Amino acid sequence: MTTQQLTEQIHKKKSFLCIGLDVDLNKIPEHLLKEEDPIFSFNKTIIDATHHLCVAYKPNIAFFEAYGIKGWKALQKTINYLNENHPEIFTIADAKRGDIGNTSKMYAKAFFEDLNFDSITVAPYMGKDSIEPFLSFQGKYAILLALTSNPGASDFQTQNIEEKKVYQKVLETSKTWSNSKNLMYVVGATQAESLNEIREIVPDSFLLIPGVGAQGGNLEDVWKYGKNSNVGLLVNSSRGIIYASSNENFAQVAMLKAKELQQQMEEMLKT
Amino acid sequence: MTTQQLTEQIHKKKSFLCIGLDVDLNKIPEHLLKEEDPIFSFNKTIIDATHHLCVAYKPNIAFFEAYGIKGWKALQKTINYLNENHPEIFTIADAKRGDIGNTSKMYAKAFFEDLNFDSITVAPYMGKDSIEPFLSFQGKYAILLALTSNPGASDFQTQNIEEKKVYQKVLETSKTWSNSKNLMYVVGATQAESLNEIREIVPDSFLLIPGVGAQGGNLEDVWKYGKNSNVGLLVNSSRGIIYASSNENFAQVAMLKAKELQQQMEEMLKT
Repeated sequence: MTTQQLTEQIHKKKSFLCIGLDVDLNKIPEHLLKEEDPIFSFNKTIIDATHHLCVAYKPNIAFFEAYGIKGWKALQKTINYLNENHPEIFTIADAKRGDIGNTSKMYAKAFFEDLNFDSITVAPYMGKDSIEPFLSFQGKYAILLALTSNPGASDFQTQNIEEKKVYQKVLETSKTWSNSKNLMYVVGATQAESLNEIREIVPDSFLLIPGVGAQGGNLEDVWKYGKNSNVGLLVNSSRGIIYASSNENFAQVAMLKAKELQQQMEEMLKT
Repeated sequence: MTTQQLTEQIHKKKSFLCIGLDVDLNKIPEHLLKEEDPIFSFNKTIIDATHHLCVAYKPNIAFFEAYGIKGWKALQKTINYLNENHPEIFTIADAKRGDIGNTSKMYAKAFFEDLNFDSITVAPYMGKDSIEPFLSFQGKYAILLALTSNPGASDFQTQNIEEKKVYQKVLETSKTWSNSKNLMYVVGATQAESLNEIREIVPDSFLLIPGVGAQGGNLEDVWKYGKNSNVGLLVNSSRGIIYASSNENFAQVAMLKAKELQQQMEEMLKT
């Protein structure tokens, strides 16, 4: 999928919502636990109820790996279900990977070729040769951690390297890497006040913005400071949507929560 | 396993060697491809031939994930084989994970509980709350990336935050985290000249040192600048051992390569 197609989808669906699939068997409705594959059943039901309201889904890989082979099978079924039934949806493997070159290449193969995700989140600590292997795939994207939504972001990301913050240095340096047009960036919604200066460094890139909802970020601020001429935003909500209810009607409630966000986004897209 | 037990194993086996299991189906001897599970067969044969010469094995998770469910099954069989037959061996999931707290908790569950590894490598970019979930398990260790062996280490890790380098800041900050005694650190063998000052910051911690062999690091320098009173070193070699031969006698050749390193280590441990 190209970023142009993604922007077209955003305008068509009047939404830049991404729904995070963080499936915890302790949190899903009890009646699903009787199913053969409760994780996939949960995801499928959420996808069926919400796919018209969002442009992306973001399975959180940790929540699948925690269930071993059963989890990996559920991940495979979930991505296959998305690719077969909703090829217009942008898929994000939230995996935060990054390793020396020959190892990153194997992760890229796992998520881009074997599982056929459109994108994967990656961590910058090991630098250029840990990320470039993800950037050589046509129509696939590496979404680089820049400024994250969690408290620990202040440990290193907002420290100063000379006159700049670490995350600014990450953004600037990443632009010099081969095929950097295949980069997107993670910026937490809790860091909306930094979006202005982030847009000065990466005016054209898509930003994946987690942290709206459970983590306390504000959608209006994200829109105000983060949008660009191609919209350039994917705003993620996970727990606020998928665990809005733990009753049998969970999918209906999830749909209503997604619709609330979609309608706010529709208003923003009009301006 | 405690670090005291690890040090005892080092003295008993006269070795601080860790063998990396980066199993690439394009590189393993052809005759193994006919086996039902070539990845596990390769690992088992390597382990059988080398376990008396090393104190740790480090499966590289990317190389398993690249083969999907088949790979995950091989990973499970490999770690089970190690835990059942060689409980004295220290096991490292080389995974470079790190995410917001509730997600890191799921990765910890995956690798410490489901797979029962002794340790996992983790990336520091997201700070304290991304690593602490790994530190609350008794007898389990998070091995934090500090100064890595690859060229991209100079992109961010060796940049200055005020008077310190980023990796020094990472080392110092990590010592303030809860249960920081359960931390070890990754320092590339190609960075041996920095080991002196690293030892000033973390005198007592174990260091996992990749980069001897294929990546060009020097074992003498690692020993000279990196050892502490409990040895405190795990030196990893992957490709230099497991792919030393691609013939039917690959395990014998791998054993000889491991023995070469073990014998150098034995001499060092005498001093």
